[in-house]
Amino acid sequence: MRAAVLEAAITELTQTGYAALTVEGVARRAGVHKTTIYRNWKDADGLVADALASHFAADIPIPDTGAVESDLRALARSLVATMTTRTGRALLTTVLSDAVRIPRLAEVKHALFDDRFRRAEPVVTRAIERGELPADTDPAELLKTLAAPIYFRLVFTGESVDEATADRAVRVALAAAHARALPAV
Amino acid sequence: MRAAVLEAAITELTQTGYAALTVEGVARRAGVHKTTIYRNWKDADGLVADALASHFAADIPIPDTGAVESDLRALARSLVATMTTRTGRALLTTVLSDAVRIPRLAEVKHALFDDRFRRAEPVVTRAIERGELPADTDPAELLKTLAAPIYFRLVFTGESVDEATADRAVRVALAAAHARALPAV
Repeated sequence: MRAAVLEAAITELTQTGYAALTVEGVARRAGVHKTTIYRNWKDADGLVADALASHFAADIPIPDTGAVESDLRALARSLVATMTTRTGRALLTTVLSDAVRIPRLAEVKHALFDDRFRRAEPVVTRAIERGELPADTDPAELLKTLAAPIYFRLVFTGESVDEATADRAVRVALAAAHARALPAV
Repeated sequence: MRAAVLEAAITELTQTGYAALTVEGVARRAGVHKTTIYRNWKDADGLVADALASHFAADIPIPDTGAVESDLRALARSLVATMTTRTGRALLTTVLSDAVRIPRLAEVKHALFDDRFRRAEPVVTRAIERGELPADTDPAELLKTLAAPIYFRLVFTGESVDEATADRAVRVALAAAHARALPAV
């Protein structure tokens, strides 16, 4: 039931946007009674936060290939793949357009990114342990350097985003780490 | 008159957003009659596109200090300075939230970024001529690498954006260029 409700919430979010989403709409789509939802979630806000967290926790697998370059390439390509799906683009659109008006959604957005970076940090700490990256590399900074050009293209320049974008982001992030431009502070 | 109308349009945009902006509102704020605006601009869309282009063309001076590092630092710090003003944040918010619903504004946004990068390209081509950067460095890619982490923080992570952010972006972009991670294709 929980999975069906969360998936229905994501679908509603991509189709109607955050502002227009209702518990009733999600319940109808999930084929459950709305009291079932209210028994598990306080309100639509809590439901959306949970649905987004659950979606963003599962859409990018954390690789462990034994080498930093292939790990980062897998991460960046997964990010490109998930953000260029219809659902990925719709969620980006919704989160960006509604978060500026709805403080609660802005908080959810910040937490989602924090969580995404935290889950991927082992990729960087393992690389440091293997001696592939400088010991003082900041894992979160490296991961943000990897993600930033991908999101920048998606949101601002409207250029195509593909595997070449992902692979260039890997080269930039690794060059920055090796040049010690991403030290922990 | 022209400057007053464009400035009034920017103020309206930051206060009411794109969707609610009217030629009448801009005319009132600029102290001109709306027919004056219609004589110079076809409609509100054209006026907003012009106002944004004019604002974004003037807010970041193009430095020429004779060295790539100080040029890029000046660029990045100017970008941080303009985007963290009340007007900068409001324009970012407006453009992001409305561009997803209004295709014309999305086009304007893409054109603004193209224009911004094109105006700054001499910073990179001069550095290549001085032998400070690899000859095959792609000027636009380097400038996007410089800007991406700043916009990423502003839009997605909600972290503070300051001179340290700008200076780290410079180190990352230079490291990437020196490692030939930003070749022209």
